[in-house]
Amino acid sequence: MGVVVQNIARADPAVIDRLAACGVATVHEAQGRTGLLASHMRPIYPGARIAASAVTISAPPGDNWMLHVAIEQLRDGDVLLLAPTSASEDGYFGDLLATSAMARGCRGLVIDAGVRDVADLMAMQFPVWSKAVFAQGTVKETLGSVNIPVVCAGALVNPGDVIVADDDGVCVVRREAAADVADRAEARVAAEGDKRRRLAAGELGLDIYDMRGRLAEKGLKYV
Amino acid sequence: MGVVVQNIARADPAVIDRLAACGVATVHEAQGRTGLLASHMRPIYPGARIAASAVTISAPPGDNWMLHVAIEQLRDGDVLLLAPTSASEDGYFGDLLATSAMARGCRGLVIDAGVRDVADLMAMQFPVWSKAVFAQGTVKETLGSVNIPVVCAGALVNPGDVIVADDDGVCVVRREAAADVADRAEARVAAEGDKRRRLAAGELGLDIYDMRGRLAEKGLKYV
Amino acid sequence: MGVVVQNIARADPAVIDRLAACGVATVHEAQGRTGLLASHMRPIYPGARIAASAVTISAPPGDNWMLHVAIEQLRDGDVLLLAPTSASEDGYFGDLLATSAMARGCRGLVIDAGVRDVADLMAMQFPVWSKAVFAQGTVKETLGSVNIPVVCAGALVNPGDVIVADDDGVCVVRREAAADVADRAEARVAAEGDKRRRLAAGELGLDIYDMRGRLAEKGLKYV
Amino acid sequence: MGVVVQNIARADPAVIDRLAACGVATVHEAQGRTGLLASHMRPIYPGARIAASAVTISAPPGDNWMLHVAIEQLRDGDVLLLAPTSASEDGYFGDLLATSAMARGCRGLVIDAGVRDVADLMAMQFPVWSKAVFAQGTVKETLGSVNIPVVCAGALVNPGDVIVADDDGVCVVRREAAADVADRAEARVAAEGDKRRRLAAGELGLDIYDMRGRLAEKGLKYV
Amino acid sequence: MGVVVQNIARADPAVIDRLAACGVATVHEAQGRTGLLASHMRPIYPGARIAASAVTISAPPGDNWMLHVAIEQLRDGDVLLLAPTSASEDGYFGDLLATSAMARGCRGLVIDAGVRDVADLMAMQFPVWSKAVFAQGTVKETLGSVNIPVVCAGALVNPGDVIVADDDGVCVVRREAAADVADRAEARVAAEGDKRRRLAAGELGLDIYDMRGRLAEKGLKYV
Amino acid sequence: MGVVVQNIARADPAVIDRLAACGVATVHEAQGRTGLLASHMRPIYPGARIAASAVTISAPPGDNWMLHVAIEQLRDGDVLLLAPTSASEDGYFGDLLATSAMARGCRGLVIDAGVRDVADLMAMQFPVWSKAVFAQGTVKETLGSVNIPVVCAGALVNPGDVIVADDDGVCVVRREAAADVADRAEARVAAEGDKRRRLAAGELGLDIYDMRGRLAEKGLKYV
Repeated sequence: MGVVVQNIARADPAVIDRLAACGVATVHEAQGRTGLLASHMRPIYPGARIAASAVTISAPPGDNWMLHVAIEQLRDGDVLLLAPTSASEDGYFGDLLATSAMARGCRGLVIDAGVRDVADLMAMQFPVWSKAVFAQGTVKETLGSVNIPVVCAGALVNPGDVIVADDDGVCVVRREAAADVADRAEARVAAEGDKRRRLAAGELGLDIYDMRGRLAEKGLKYV
Repeated sequence: MGVVVQNIARADPAVIDRLAACGVATVHEAQGRTGLLASHMRPIYPGARIAASAVTISAPPGDNWMLHVAIEQLRDGDVLLLAPTSASEDGYFGDLLATSAMARGCRGLVIDAGVRDVADLMAMQFPVWSKAVFAQGTVKETLGSVNIPVVCAGALVNPGDVIVADDDGVCVVRREAAADVADRAEARVAAEGDKRRRLAAGELGLDIYDMRGRLAEKGLKYV
Repeated sequence: MGVVVQNIARADPAVIDRLAACGVATVHEAQGRTGLLASHMRPIYPGARIAASAVTISAPPGDNWMLHVAIEQLRDGDVLLLAPTSASEDGYFGDLLATSAMARGCRGLVIDAGVRDVADLMAMQFPVWSKAVFAQGTVKETLGSVNIPVVCAGALVNPGDVIVADDDGVCVVRREAAADVADRAEARVAAEGDKRRRLAAGELGLDIYDMRGRLAEKGLKYV
Repeated sequence: MGVVVQNIARADPAVIDRLAACGVATVHEAQGRTGLLASHMRPIYPGARIAASAVTISAPPGDNWMLHVAIEQLRDGDVLLLAPTSASEDGYFGDLLATSAMARGCRGLVIDAGVRDVADLMAMQFPVWSKAVFAQGTVKETLGSVNIPVVCAGALVNPGDVIVADDDGVCVVRREAAADVADRAEARVAAEGDKRRRLAAGELGLDIYDMRGRLAEKGLKYV
Repeated sequence: MGVVVQNIARADPAVIDRLAACGVATVHEAQGRTGLLASHMRPIYPGARIAASAVTISAPPGDNWMLHVAIEQLRDGDVLLLAPTSASEDGYFGDLLATSAMARGCRGLVIDAGVRDVADLMAMQFPVWSKAVFAQGTVKETLGSVNIPVVCAGALVNPGDVIVADDDGVCVVRREAAADVADRAEARVAAEGDKRRRLAAGELGLDIYDMRGRLAEKGLKYV
Repeated sequence: MGVVVQNIARADPAVIDRLAACGVATVHEAQGRTGLLASHMRPIYPGARIAASAVTISAPPGDNWMLHVAIEQLRDGDVLLLAPTSASEDGYFGDLLATSAMARGCRGLVIDAGVRDVADLMAMQFPVWSKAVFAQGTVKETLGSVNIPVVCAGALVNPGDVIVADDDGVCVVRREAAADVADRAEARVAAEGDKRRRLAAGELGLDIYDMRGRLAEKGLKYV
């Protein structure tokens, strides 16, 4: 605890934007159904979709001091990601911190804890994915760390990993794998277009994916 | 497990539409305060209100194979209803399955598990009531059954029962009782109109429902 | 149980409106980070912000009789606040009770239980903060009390205390302290304006709040 | 609501005892991995193992009147099973009701709600599987029903179905299937004896169950 | 925050011991079914039953400093009761603090958070009722208060109120009402002895409590 | 997915035993209050205390195939640690797998899911720390991996890391740091002995830890 890593590697911005375009569900599938944060991480308003490089924060429960420290480490196109060292729903973040983060090009916040001033944040269009909306104030007494690997909502996130977040939740992509995952995600999107057209026309998944034989083999009985 | 019942009886479409018009709370009251699914079943977007015949699915945790099987059994005006055999929040259903279901006249999905691609589903106006929004992908390995009785979110649902769902949640009506419940629900709606007017004019429920005597008898004291 | 206190003191309406203007997070901070109800108390639709005098209700689980009793005690500018005597998610309140409460000038409902008819309530713009949305009907069999001190969602609320509620949740302010808290809350709002401007201009909280020295003292290391 | 079915069919007592001897996990497997109540149903003390015929109770939240009604319906070798009509953790049952139930040959209680006097119940060796231990008292105001089908902790239970309960939880066996399930459960127990010996001697499940080929086929890689 | 009240009134030790003898469920009933802490407050080992005067603690999440302050305020026959200012499961208390508290005559701990070293605490026979067992360490940075009124697990507790705790959970009795509640609790215990004998002899509660008429009036039907 | 790493490094067995002797709370503190698994990881019976090298398992929800694969990788003194790829409470493990694991020297199981046959496991003295006790059976259809890094109950665990588990829960120690952590943990144990004696003799933590000055500085007021 008590360490700030200042120079972290980030993925290629163009790759990050490609991941954003694909969205959480597709990116998660494209990397072998891995990387999701837990289902309790929900957006504070509908419609936001981002991808960004994670500036990670490990912070004590009910203590938001490290957010101030982390904001200095932000570069344009980053996202703040905070994991408390033990479970908390306190409101670590509100409109003032959002104002500061936006001024530094921050695309949003992912926090396995609480957030407040959500009406203001929606008005500012500063998206947050959190465990709770809760006004509970926090203190500034105990150090944490910035830009170390953290486990956030059940997923390991390294500083500089790419975070993809939308209405479906939050997914992490390893920085080193980002370009490869983007390729595979886009291939999925392309392949889905054709399937969508066929399904919309009334063809069945049973036929498109050729499932009938294997279902029969497993013993499915129609009565 | 491993059974698909192909020809199920359904309620009269006109009765189903009458139930939709009454809504969940009224229908629940009209059948003696029964039939609600648990309060964790929430709509993915506000404003949808449906009633439809249930095509039921019993599926293993994290395995959405039976959804493909169930879609073939859909008729115009049906709703898919999935109960996992043990608790799951995985994302069994997304925009491709919704496209396929809509092509067959499906009115929505009720699932005691997760759903994904919710921004797309909202854009398509395909309503879902679910336990979670979660992008977690599923496999296609283990059989379940279609159109057997299931317990979904604490309520017994038989295939062909009528599902009513709106912003208040989800209610099941036995197929055989649907017409009778619709009659009673409409009678409630009619009776409520008069009460609403009197209450809006400032009359008290204490007087309209003649409660003062019984409250006094029970010992209520005004100080 | 079984007591209705009819004449309760209320805070000055002008003070109540000043508290509404400040909002939950600011008021909570202004009174020393106290007074919040638990984070599970969520609004049924976004955008409402109220402050009002609490007419408190202690009611048995699944029994909404006392709401009818409480509505008679409402004065213009009040809010109903219900705490069940044991945990419940049942739907104690719907559009008819809201119609009656609105007719008496009620500004909303805070209930550590369930509410129903939420589409109607949103259409009526009658705001509710609740633990659940659930259509489950209730009985009218057992007495509770009106306008006694209650613990609601973890917070002690006395009748006549001021309730502030918005998208961040719900906060209670002691009636006797309301004017003083309003003063301090408004002072915070004023002070935040300047900070917001400086943060928006790119100044860091680390500098504005002069945190660098104390962080170094505590041992924070930049690497 | 408000019905007591007095003469219910029960399974053969000898079959019931055979199911008790097999235990919850084996019985659950023997009937195709079905019948379990949810994992929140826990015993109030370790070491009890019973099977018994269910006398079912549907009761309102926080109202234990129907337990008194149900006790009259008990026969030697029965178990009480209570499902509240909406979620409750209240303490419906304590040592007095247990005394009464034991006097009529009752083997225990399964309740998707709370229980109290647990130290006394343990001293009396009256086993209970419940959602909660909670002293909260209940009222006697609203009717429920006895010996109707209920959904308890996610499982459908008909009156006279066999309940098997031990430290692993609670399982329901349809009355009509009880003998057949007992046969299959005992066959499992017999088959497990040999496997247990081989595993204890160091043989691997990979070899006993001949899994290596199928794992390789699926693509498992050893590195 | 930041206040220690040093001289608090306590109930008569003889009355406290009488309450302990009656136990939680009886005391809760004797005071009109009030005073219970939430059902998540569970003993760390079975069999303890205490009553004691509450030394109350309001402490920040994850900060156990005030426990050291509170221990100095303990007198023989007291219990420590800690309510965090926001939800926490951290391990505020372990064997060293228990050693210190026991040396001052403390009878146990009630904490709406976590506790650790539970094997040691059981060996020392120092009972704890808590929300969680969790080893998570805490800091000593932020002030709280000692011997102020707190809401703990949903119940208001004033310093010097009597806490009764056993395997059924935890109940608070107002200091001023303690003697009266003890009288009524003992009357219940006496009355229950006769009922227990009659029930054990096979008489039904339906007859002892004369319920048949009222059940029939409400419409109960035997079929 | 689908990888089994066969040769993993393990910590020195003597160091592992030293960590077991210190216990979870002390080890957690000794490594800077890190490494705890979430508080929902509870032992199935009291009194077990182990330390062991982790053989890690990443398994799909409701699929225990990889446990058979992992058992072959066990060496004397190891512990199995299973993290499902999405949330599950199913009963992946019972007495047969325990028999097999014990035959290979396994010291226990840590599983962020369910376990069954717990009466047998207690009789065998095979300790398990789990999220749930649940008899729900699982399938063997989908590959996972063995001896890859996993996030288990919120903590990152690498294969070969040391797991310490007792009645307080579960803690992970990085393999490379094990000797150093053992040194620091033993130093804490030694230091605590003296403190325990002084506290037992009635000295206050306020004095032993010299807290009075800092409390006064922060503004603590005695009234």
